[in-house]
Amino acid sequence: MSTPLAVLQNVATQLRIDSVRSTTEAGTGHPTSCLSAAEIVATLFFDEMRFDPKDPKNIDNDRFVLSKGHAAPILYAAWAEAGLFPRADLLKLRTIGSDLEGHPTPRLTFVDVATGSLGQGICASVGTALNARRIGSDYRTYVVLGDGEMAEGSVWEAAEIALYYKLDNLCGVVDVNGLGQSQATQFGHQMDAIAAHWTAFGWHTLVVDGHDIPSLQKAFAGARATKGRPTMVLARTLKGKGLAAIEGKDGWHGKALKKGEEADKAVAELEKQMVDAGGAKPAIAMPQAKGRPDVAPDYSKIPAPAYKKGDQVATREAWGTALAVLGTADTRVVALDADVKNSTFSDRFEKANRDRFYENFIAEQVMVGAAMGLAARGAIPFPSTFACFLTRAADFIRMGGISFSNVKFAGSHAGVSIGEDGPSQMALEDLSMTRGVPGCAVLYPCDAVSTERLVVEMGRHAGMAYMRTSRPKTPVIYGPDEAFPIGGSKTLRQSPEDVAAVVGAGITVFEALKAYDQLKAEGIQIRVIDAYSVQPIDAKTMIEAATATGGALITVEDHYPAGGIGDAVSEAVAAAGFVVRRLAVREIPRSGQPDELIDRYGISSRHIVDAVRQVARQPASPR
Amino acid sequence: MSTPLAVLQNVATQLRIDSVRSTTEAGTGHPTSCLSAAEIVATLFFDEMRFDPKDPKNIDNDRFVLSKGHAAPILYAAWAEAGLFPRADLLKLRTIGSDLEGHPTPRLTFVDVATGSLGQGICASVGTALNARRIGSDYRTYVVLGDGEMAEGSVWEAAEIALYYKLDNLCGVVDVNGLGQSQATQFGHQMDAIAAHWTAFGWHTLVVDGHDIPSLQKAFAGARATKGRPTMVLARTLKGKGLAAIEGKDGWHGKALKKGEEADKAVAELEKQMVDAGGAKPAIAMPQAKGRPDVAPDYSKIPAPAYKKGDQVATREAWGTALAVLGTADTRVVALDADVKNSTFSDRFEKANRDRFYENFIAEQVMVGAAMGLAARGAIPFPSTFACFLTRAADFIRMGGISFSNVKFAGSHAGVSIGEDGPSQMALEDLSMTRGVPGCAVLYPCDAVSTERLVVEMGRHAGMAYMRTSRPKTPVIYGPDEAFPIGGSKTLRQSPEDVAAVVGAGITVFEALKAYDQLKAEGIQIRVIDAYSVQPIDAKTMIEAATATGGALITVEDHYPAGGIGDAVSEAVAAAGFVVRRLAVREIPRSGQPDELIDRYGISSRHIVDAVRQVARQPASPR
Repeated sequence: MSTPLAVLQNVATQLRIDSVRSTTEAGTGHPTSCLSAAEIVATLFFDEMRFDPKDPKNIDNDRFVLSKGHAAPILYAAWAEAGLFPRADLLKLRTIGSDLEGHPTPRLTFVDVATGSLGQGICASVGTALNARRIGSDYRTYVVLGDGEMAEGSVWEAAEIALYYKLDNLCGVVDVNGLGQSQATQFGHQMDAIAAHWTAFGWHTLVVDGHDIPSLQKAFAGARATKGRPTMVLARTLKGKGLAAIEGKDGWHGKALKKGEEADKAVAELEKQMVDAGGAKPAIAMPQAKGRPDVAPDYSKIPAPAYKKGDQVATREAWGTALAVLGTADTRVVALDADVKNSTFSDRFEKANRDRFYENFIAEQVMVGAAMGLAARGAIPFPSTFACFLTRAADFIRMGGISFSNVKFAGSHAGVSIGEDGPSQMALEDLSMTRGVPGCAVLYPCDAVSTERLVVEMGRHAGMAYMRTSRPKTPVIYGPDEAFPIGGSKTLRQSPEDVAAVVGAGITVFEALKAYDQLKAEGIQIRVIDAYSVQPIDAKTMIEAATATGGALITVEDHYPAGGIGDAVSEAVAAAGFVVRRLAVREIPRSGQPDELIDRYGISSRHIVDAVRQVARQPASPR
Repeated sequence: MSTPLAVLQNVATQLRIDSVRSTTEAGTGHPTSCLSAAEIVATLFFDEMRFDPKDPKNIDNDRFVLSKGHAAPILYAAWAEAGLFPRADLLKLRTIGSDLEGHPTPRLTFVDVATGSLGQGICASVGTALNARRIGSDYRTYVVLGDGEMAEGSVWEAAEIALYYKLDNLCGVVDVNGLGQSQATQFGHQMDAIAAHWTAFGWHTLVVDGHDIPSLQKAFAGARATKGRPTMVLARTLKGKGLAAIEGKDGWHGKALKKGEEADKAVAELEKQMVDAGGAKPAIAMPQAKGRPDVAPDYSKIPAPAYKKGDQVATREAWGTALAVLGTADTRVVALDADVKNSTFSDRFEKANRDRFYENFIAEQVMVGAAMGLAARGAIPFPSTFACFLTRAADFIRMGGISFSNVKFAGSHAGVSIGEDGPSQMALEDLSMTRGVPGCAVLYPCDAVSTERLVVEMGRHAGMAYMRTSRPKTPVIYGPDEAFPIGGSKTLRQSPEDVAAVVGAGITVFEALKAYDQLKAEGIQIRVIDAYSVQPIDAKTMIEAATATGGALITVEDHYPAGGIGDAVSEAVAAAGFVVRRLAVREIPRSGQPDELIDRYGISSRHIVDAVRQVARQPASPR
């Protein structure tokens, strides 16, 4: 089945008309960035791709990722043309009542990941391409980039990993219209210079006239025939193509044509470009049903952790152990790392489930982007690296939130407690970063049992989650049957005489327990809470603790104060009128031994004891 | 002046010995990553570079950036060899009392930027190379990368910008030892494949034996002779070189040799590699004094803003206007943008001071990294882009904090008030990200006058600063002579009858003023505060407002709750026992009109009025 050339040409023209009309009606948007891509999108949707237009989520559908997300109107026009929804809906573009947003989001069934932050779509497409292998489907992934977008380093991270995994089921198209937002791109229409980049990165690279449909068809056929490496089609285009007064001109980025004469003339000019197609219609090729549908296992059958109280185990190690077990139980689980698998312990997953482990070398952006692509297609990805280096992918995590991505991050080596490696390796803002994603579960266990249990909870949780793990070994304090629901906490010490409550998580739980012992020896009782779920925080328990202690609530965290545990607890108890004393790291730390640093930066048992003496509901006096 | 070959060989051996000894003494570190780089570092420091070893800050010194920061011990050994401090100090490596940290930081006079998050040093080196032109110096910048590091996309961002600016005063060296932390790198010792990358990116590219000093010397001479483009020397090396049992072997990353026999044998093996140099000593070439020293202008003479109250001006536009003026007054000021200068209004600076404006295309990481390099050499850089896309450089901003970088960020188009473009373009975590840098001033003006005044304050401020600007136009509410010190606030409405205090910033100031008008019409008085300085927050004024209103304090922000204005105010007033009711954006937003979104996401005047009714110190009843 194929669509006649004249029909494809008319579809391209229709997509142009729709892109102009919808943006003009909205009074905002990027019509010229759509116009350059019209033949590319028409050829992909109505000649090259195999997909069920009535079932965008079909697991065997070819995937289309619009990495240049600002061309959203042409994506929407293509799906309207394919019959998924009425063309009239396009005129609701960018209105609050419509899911046809300014940039694509997965509120739409046919969008895998939100785009609009450039250089991310191609990373996600690495993930959808990897996923085809995971489920045994022969679907292909097509990703359309802007040429300005190639300046983003993440594009080259994706290029390397796609080569490493020999993703011949991935085909990119760069819409080389030569113009960025504010000026010409670095390489303009120097197609040879651009091609040299992709060739050097090992991709099968083709340069075509992006407004010539037969050339595009030939390029896509060439991509399909290429084995062992991905293909990049560099399509030379004109921004604003089809509108003589605008095409190839600077100064038209992100400008809708004015309603009335300006837009009417443009539409009339485009309509004249319609050719006689003899009444033929565009055809869409259906996919072959080959992929294995995912099946959720019975999570209650996942074995309990095998630790004894008092065992010394780093939570990062327990995370790796638990992930390996989870991955064996649930074939949807995949793991990704960025050349630190022997420190994060994701190598345990690799050993147990080698075909579902993806090494990303030192490239955190593509690691997270690929995870988003995998998650969009049913996998449950666990990307891991040092917590501080997740920050390298902060913008991807932000967009993952907007994509409602089912990704489970793990950041190891958090805080000053890593010691000698120094501040560049110390995550002190990761809790804030992940709490800044609405709905993201933020978990920070203190021992191996809670870590293992929470890894299982992360797998079960619908939506994004983050686990922060620690470098030093800590003693196991929980029994193997203890449950750790997301949103819960554990009150480790309490009595009717508690004069203050100390809320810690991770390594500070043990500082709080030390403070408890010291104060108890003086006859002073405090409550100690393990806030292993930082988001959602256990508001009920926090308010109870504040109430019981007359509001003497102290938080202590191996993290900067902004956006961390103190802030989380503070907001939770504010409604009940309670305030929080926050102990946190308040300056740029330095190298040293873990215990030295914990003390120097104000989060050791000594500081907790001091804070208790200051805020306790009754003067704390020695026995 | 040059150092004889035998001396250079012995220096390389000495650097190896020092790297082994210091890491062994510390019991932690990356000796094998130092050993591969010994000839590279020895040749650069004692043959190629021109610098005053007694004055590391000399403005004409060649710059050395260790992008592979984990090789810090060899950097320290080189400076000890150069005579800056006693060799015995090297044994204090990684101890809390020493500035010889696990990874280099600018606590050391000879370190321009903190490294240890890979792929960043080369971005900073773009900045130091640009700075040489700014001050008219002929100093050169040398940057040493690891090969695993090339997986970071930021490296390719730097490669493009260095080419664009024809930085022939920049010479990189990749220490291609073929091994990452957890396994071989993607390309191992495939020198041709690696070289193809750099050649495609337009760099003069040379492949050499990285343990052969004459080859390195020849390559550096070739770099010096190359005009119009940067040079990359790809040095084939062995990790652990010099220790037969370790060299080229996987599994030795980040492992110090054990004190005692293991380390003693290694040192003995290295000592045997010393050759007869006839008593000759290493020589260091001094720099030529050519650069123009920077001079700080009289900031009090910078003209006052020229606005009338009621003028409608977007703060992003006022920022651009003010930056152009500041740049004309202070030649240390430089601006950088990432292809949005016509939206951020940094194009006003470009027009006024073209030679100090740097376009980075759509590459936020190198934009921020280059700013850090420029700042390290005396410039006052103002990088700007949409606030949400600063998140792309979050890890650079984190490292900028560790570098104590004098960089002044501007993020435009903050919050849901941008409207139709949708969530991918809405910064809702930028205040949290920047508050997460200790000492970073975080500013969020609401009108053009305060924006202009605060741009000047940013220039004057010693250290990192961030200004958040808005897309919509807002009315000018301040007179031209009003002062806006960092750490201050403005109380816009107050009376003895205030039943609540509303703290806003940016666009929410106007929502608060609307709420004020509405409540006043009902006979209810509230206090309205413009918290233009989010960090440091004006704690005194906040506590006074809480005290005056019986604790009825409301914050309202176009930002997620985590780490934003509410949290900042909350911590400020907690010590006085007051809590805060936080109005903030609490879910992933969508496209729509600004006013619709402000209302839908809970931060409009209507929500403020509701909150006042809930928390007011006495029942608020109609007149």
